[in-house]
Amino acid sequence: MNKKKLYNVAVLGATGAVGQEMIKVLAERNFPIGELRLLASARSAGKTVRCGTRELVIEEACDAAFAGMDIVLGAAENDIAKRFAPAIQAAGAMFVDNSSAFRLDPDVPLVVPEINPEDVAAAKKGIIANPNCSTIITLMALAPIARISPIQTLVASTYQAVSGAGAEGLAELEAQAEAYPKGEPLQAKAFPHQILFNLIPRIGGVGENGYSSEEMKLQNEGRKILHLPELRVTCTCVRVPVMRSHSISATFTTARPVSVEEARTALASAPGVQLVDDPNNDVYPMPLATSDQDDVFVGRIRRDLVSENGLTLWCCGDQIRKGAATNAIQIAELLIQ
Amino acid sequence: MNKKKLYNVAVLGATGAVGQEMIKVLAERNFPIGELRLLASARSAGKTVRCGTRELVIEEACDAAFAGMDIVLGAAENDIAKRFAPAIQAAGAMFVDNSSAFRLDPDVPLVVPEINPEDVAAAKKGIIANPNCSTIITLMALAPIARISPIQTLVASTYQAVSGAGAEGLAELEAQAEAYPKGEPLQAKAFPHQILFNLIPRIGGVGENGYSSEEMKLQNEGRKILHLPELRVTCTCVRVPVMRSHSISATFTTARPVSVEEARTALASAPGVQLVDDPNNDVYPMPLATSDQDDVFVGRIRRDLVSENGLTLWCCGDQIRKGAATNAIQIAELLIQ
Repeated sequence: MNKKKLYNVAVLGATGAVGQEMIKVLAERNFPIGELRLLASARSAGKTVRCGTRELVIEEACDAAFAGMDIVLGAAENDIAKRFAPAIQAAGAMFVDNSSAFRLDPDVPLVVPEINPEDVAAAKKGIIANPNCSTIITLMALAPIARISPIQTLVASTYQAVSGAGAEGLAELEAQAEAYPKGEPLQAKAFPHQILFNLIPRIGGVGENGYSSEEMKLQNEGRKILHLPELRVTCTCVRVPVMRSHSISATFTTARPVSVEEARTALASAPGVQLVDDPNNDVYPMPLATSDQDDVFVGRIRRDLVSENGLTLWCCGDQIRKGAATNAIQIAELLIQ
Repeated sequence: MNKKKLYNVAVLGATGAVGQEMIKVLAERNFPIGELRLLASARSAGKTVRCGTRELVIEEACDAAFAGMDIVLGAAENDIAKRFAPAIQAAGAMFVDNSSAFRLDPDVPLVVPEINPEDVAAAKKGIIANPNCSTIITLMALAPIARISPIQTLVASTYQAVSGAGAEGLAELEAQAEAYPKGEPLQAKAFPHQILFNLIPRIGGVGENGYSSEEMKLQNEGRKILHLPELRVTCTCVRVPVMRSHSISATFTTARPVSVEEARTALASAPGVQLVDDPNNDVYPMPLATSDQDDVFVGRIRRDLVSENGLTLWCCGDQIRKGAATNAIQIAELLIQ
């Protein structure tokens, strides 16, 4: 991308949970913005939103809306991302897209800036994909260990916050929490069942092999980000009544044994990671503690009792921030470096 | 045990969550009770409790209280179980104990009636131990498959309800749910941190190998119940804001490959198990659906993508009932058969 002092940035899907957080993170990190254009559906057009000191009006997303933009941050669903990608390309803007539409496209880099920043250079279509939220959080914990010895297998169980279902997911848990003490019926719409005091062990459609789309992302995206095409992952994705941080229980093997001490040392110095691991003093990663900030917390690191070359750990990270908005803006920062 | 028409039964720890449920389950299952004696600490003595049509007064637990009893159901902590075991033995009663004090004693059978009922006969000390709640629920899902081919390794992540911390745990989540909408501070006492909208990834003290006592139970008790002394288990135990059903994500290998279809067939006909597995129609085990009943629900059965001989599944069961009270009373039923 050509060097400039200020860059024109559009947020596509600016009214959703991730879009709103992108606007916040752009301001927090003092991204050098010239014009900031906030795009959403016709329904939201005309609403005003604050970004740092600016007051901005939401515009309806249309092909013409990308003219003059340098970077488009995508926070919309797959169909919207696919629909507008050609217009973004035609406008000559870089599209940093949080949907899963382009993640596995060989011409689209899939980037976690702390892990594979160099892949940004390989963007052949003007698109860089932001990985799945659970994938980012899990790989932030695993990548520092994978640098010691490549990861071969991973068994992961997720504990995913309602924010993964967007603003509607957050509103639904909030509404159920409000209704419960009053004895009012708990309405389920964003989720197929009550989520307060419950767990829903399916996220995304289930394919022929019995795995949900969300579960397969950890293997498919993990292979691409870590450059480990042989990585095998068995994942179980579960929605839990937590607001906005995802947690993952991960048991994995490496090509050669990595000791708990080696893993701790690697994690302690890894950027974007906090080692939080003193369980007998009740110090361990928790979703409440990782909410509204960017670091991924990692703890409960111990030898796997099943495999000689295995370790197991527990990690948590804010799904909306590092799992989506912050990672996308870090990618944009790589683009303008 | 000598055959009788009616048996004198004592419940030790009758005021706790498990003790209360034992009283309820005894009545529900028409256990042939002569005298029912409810024992607890001095603090609770004098309170009255209903059991079916009977109104009973709580008595203080003391050595003399076991005289004339045929069966003592233990629902107290380890120290209480150890303290009264000699008096129960001296009184000639069978002690079905839910604490972990005697579970690994080679002279004490550890029994899940659907899995290893024959072990009841090996009681050499008049004690039969009731396994850990997560262990019972996990093994109810795995044992029907282990009968096809022995299980060799298991990687499990638990999602454990607050009832596992007893009546105080239930009261704490309830109190936090009441306080939250009012904007009042959420008090944490039964748990080291807020549990509403949070996860706590430690249950029990953590040992030198980094595993908590709760995590090691699945391997230690699983080996004994399944008669698989070589079974290797890596377990991560996590407290979740759910009232009374535990859930487990279990990935395991068997000596020879077992197909998903074989596993489903075995589970569909297993007593105490319900196969609940149609995820694309939102049919899967959930803690809300398994609360206040005895069956363990099993679903999300699919091939492990990591190991040739592996499967993975998700199961839920009521922690207070099949995880504790019902299993103990099923053991008592075996004793009087």
